Amino acid sequence: MSNERLIYLPLGGAGEIGMNAYVYGWGKPGKERLILVDLGVTFPDMETSPGVNLIFPDISWLVERKDRLEAIFITHAHEDHFGAVGHYWSRLGVPVYARAFTAHHIRRKMIENGQPEAEVKTVSPWPEVTKAGPFSVGVLPVSHSIPEGGSIVIDTPAGRVIHTGDFKLDETPLVGEPFDADLWAEVSKDGVKALVCDSTNVFSQHPGRSEATVGPEIEKLVAGASKMVVATTFASNVARVKTLAEAGKRAGRTVCLMGRAMQRMIEASVETGVLTDFPATVPPEEAAKLPREELMLIVTGSQGERRAASAQLARGKHMGITLKEGDLFLFSSKTIPGNENGVIRVMNQFSERGVDVVDDNDGAYHVSGHANRPDLERMQDIVAPQMVIPMHGEHRHLRELTKLTKERGRAAIVAVNGTMIDLTGDEPVVADYVETGRTYLDGTVQIGAMDGIVRDRIRVALNGHLVVSVILDEDDEPLGEAWCELKGLPETGSSNASLVDVLEADLTQFLARAGAKTLADDDKLDTELRRIARNTCMSEIGRKPEVTVIVSRLS
Amino acid sequence: MSNERLIYLPLGGAGEIGMNAYVYGWGKPGKERLILVDLGVTFPDMETSPGVNLIFPDISWLVERKDRLEAIFITHAHEDHFGAVGHYWSRLGVPVYARAFTAHHIRRKMIENGQPEAEVKTVSPWPEVTKAGPFSVGVLPVSHSIPEGGSIVIDTPAGRVIHTGDFKLDETPLVGEPFDADLWAEVSKDGVKALVCDSTNVFSQHPGRSEATVGPEIEKLVAGASKMVVATTFASNVARVKTLAEAGKRAGRTVCLMGRAMQRMIEASVETGVLTDFPATVPPEEAAKLPREELMLIVTGSQGERRAASAQLARGKHMGITLKEGDLFLFSSKTIPGNENGVIRVMNQFSERGVDVVDDNDGAYHVSGHANRPDLERMQDIVAPQMVIPMHGEHRHLRELTKLTKERGRAAIVAVNGTMIDLTGDEPVVADYVETGRTYLDGTVQIGAMDGIVRDRIRVALNGHLVVSVILDEDDEPLGEAWCELKGLPETGSSNASLVDVLEADLTQFLARAGAKTLADDDKLDTELRRIARNTCMSEIGRKPEVTVIVSRLS
Repeated sequence: MSNERLIYLPLGGAGEIGMNAYVYGWGKPGKERLILVDLGVTFPDMETSPGVNLIFPDISWLVERKDRLEAIFITHAHEDHFGAVGHYWSRLGVPVYARAFTAHHIRRKMIENGQPEAEVKTVSPWPEVTKAGPFSVGVLPVSHSIPEGGSIVIDTPAGRVIHTGDFKLDETPLVGEPFDADLWAEVSKDGVKALVCDSTNVFSQHPGRSEATVGPEIEKLVAGASKMVVATTFASNVARVKTLAEAGKRAGRTVCLMGRAMQRMIEASVETGVLTDFPATVPPEEAAKLPREELMLIVTGSQGERRAASAQLARGKHMGITLKEGDLFLFSSKTIPGNENGVIRVMNQFSERGVDVVDDNDGAYHVSGHANRPDLERMQDIVAPQMVIPMHGEHRHLRELTKLTKERGRAAIVAVNGTMIDLTGDEPVVADYVETGRTYLDGTVQIGAMDGIVRDRIRVALNGHLVVSVILDEDDEPLGEAWCELKGLPETGSSNASLVDVLEADLTQFLARAGAKTLADDDKLDTELRRIARNTCMSEIGRKPEVTVIVSRLS
Repeated sequence: MSNERLIYLPLGGAGEIGMNAYVYGWGKPGKERLILVDLGVTFPDMETSPGVNLIFPDISWLVERKDRLEAIFITHAHEDHFGAVGHYWSRLGVPVYARAFTAHHIRRKMIENGQPEAEVKTVSPWPEVTKAGPFSVGVLPVSHSIPEGGSIVIDTPAGRVIHTGDFKLDETPLVGEPFDADLWAEVSKDGVKALVCDSTNVFSQHPGRSEATVGPEIEKLVAGASKMVVATTFASNVARVKTLAEAGKRAGRTVCLMGRAMQRMIEASVETGVLTDFPATVPPEEAAKLPREELMLIVTGSQGERRAASAQLARGKHMGITLKEGDLFLFSSKTIPGNENGVIRVMNQFSERGVDVVDDNDGAYHVSGHANRPDLERMQDIVAPQMVIPMHGEHRHLRELTKLTKERGRAAIVAVNGTMIDLTGDEPVVADYVETGRTYLDGTVQIGAMDGIVRDRIRVALNGHLVVSVILDEDDEPLGEAWCELKGLPETGSSNASLVDVLEADLTQFLARAGAKTLADDDKLDTELRRIARNTCMSEIGRKPEVTVIVSRLS
């Protein structure tokens, strides 16, 4: 094997929660054959990415080496793990492997983006393996908050690597395979080189609770309700949707799913066999005709998304249904950091309608899909890997799991996006640093996060935009006055006159006095007009706006 | 008393957390003499108010009736209770009453805004009262997360009203007066007409914990640290700052306060006598010279604010000090909803430096300043008011406290901003609805939240901005081509040509074909240019930007 090596390179998902994309490679340095595990998205926010539709990892490094790429493996069907496959597939052009339910969702993404769905290959769970260059790759079932959570077992010439994907240790997950400690021990018994491990919940000190623990609490809550009951959770949390539906059914209620994602997810689960005996449901138009105290709605929008069913119901009538005084609305979910304001807005809108809003109530009505600290310890004990590489976490999570692992006597390393790790030896070693970043889907265009386009939008949002237009004749003499247009700026400032009038007067005065040299020089004119406009704004309205200067020359 | 009445009118703070402003009045309808309790601000965010400096309640209703306004009373020195006094005083022109520490801060606001500080009158606590028209008003000490929490006792011809302000029931608050149940019972013994009551923590089921409970935990943490210790909390939480400083001192560390607000708040506390025996501190330039393991910094920025000391330290060297591997950073605070991303950013930046970040640890290192549900019940039992009007809360908080109060057999009503309540009878009754809203301090200009200025900035942030400029000669014939400038839009779209080129070609083509009637009509020209530009953008980049059209006519 001489100087061949086994490498690990996160392009997304390490040092952040979202847009997972992890490269593994085997071969001589610079000639490794590669596979990619996961290819997800991150969602934009108003603070850092206004107007952006979706955020992808920048995979330029991989695209430049796509002749060395063998295959893509997807752990599970959460958007942050597979959401970019449809947009990026044409740039990579290799088969995508996943289990049935996951593959079902990937195919939809492929079709939506005009890509060949046949390139998505359904695999059976471990012990089935797929050959991919020097690798032999299997999907080992693991529990998570979606059916078919999968860890990726990668057999390499340097030994076995297990990439956990997102996981928890749930022996009663209700939907999907229970965590099977014996199977994991069996898979690990001949030695595992590296455990590349979810670190999201490393700061949660208590052992994670099973999905099965929320059912009885939810049942009690629903049984005690006297009017309509509405509950929301992530559509992909099929086990939770089932728990909610069963609670409704046991309370003698008719169940109705509302929101496209919710219906689609349940359909996919039934179609692919991961969900059986789901209570009968009625469509919203039927539900609207039933007495409200006999109804249980399960709706999208646990994060307060403006277009989801929860927010629509909060604003008023939706699909024929209006929530009223005494109805119950349950958030069987956790609010993801950054979504608080949206969720609180929905809660208060419901409150204004007299609806009783119940949140997760310190975990009574929700459990996390990720392994807590004691579970992470247990996982390390079962697998007993030579080394641990934390992933799926912000820097603080990666660092904490690294500390924890080392304290327990194992090798570990913090490897954020772009850090290429050599796993070949006894300890993980940094082999290289690779440029990574974010790509924005902006409308229908892919732009780089650092291109300055979104930065300009943020600047205008913070400072407003002033457009200054001047026309010069063939002799470079100003023709008429300077013309100003405001966007997002107050109309009147400290002098109590129209801001536009004050600006136009100041700029026209400058033009009248400007020398021939200045008037003939576009750059000079631009600089001076901009400077004067910003100063006038500063004294009139206390801020310097973004300025666009248009100099038109008749020539 | 015939048809005279006692009214309550929240102009801010009811149906939201922030910008508190509550009017009380006595007299014949439309002729009531008025007082104002609190005049605070709310802080802007990128999602709803980008570029805005501060948010005030719209007090137009009160300004139109300022001849009937007698006085302003401020409960305590939190920005959401007094932050607008300096900006608004000139529009109201009446004396502002508060206790010494609070008045100290109000005077600073007055000076900062060029207002007469002499109009701020220092009062002593209950039983001292101030006459204000038909009212006799006192400040009753109550515990909160700032020295000199104050409830306002308003004696009216219709009976006594107690406006709690923000409060908790803390019998060992460390700084400021302990909650004195006997004093409150004494004040309430002859009957209280209405308790206008903080509702913020009504969903918190456990009795609130005393400020004194965090000291031992923090001491343990600091004593166990081996390198530099840095802690942050709200500067105004003087008791907490003292607890942190004492924990540092006991661990043999030298204490240093960092951040202007922190230093100013401690100075004000000492000056006004609310704080005694605060440990000796050294300025940052001294601290920088000391061995790091002997240092305890207490810094501003518990909410991840970009310019505060915590964020500066997270980014690198600040005032000569750099945090390093193994240092400890404690958030002795709760993250206010909406600030999560900022706090998480700071945490991860510290993590990258190897700093161990500790959060409130489920309350071990932080307690709330507001009364929890059992405390609210206890307060009602002590005061035994005829009615309760919840305030200082979102709609869901007001509604929940109203429900709780009614279940316990007392009258109560949800009164959001603009709801005038008649308190004269046995039950609270809605007397009127008044227009309220938000005023933005935008640069140096006050603008209305509904003026469309900020809405335009948000639209540009979401959609980008396209400026189209065309010049027409004296005969309404286009002179040269259309000119386009992009702001916040991709440079290249689906046709792989420059977006500006494609736009200019389409618009110039339109101008060439347009009829004389269209070219002569500014409105028609504007509409058509806008329509074509937006359609071209839609097909090129998949979005319709904001468009500004400038038609210049040489005439």
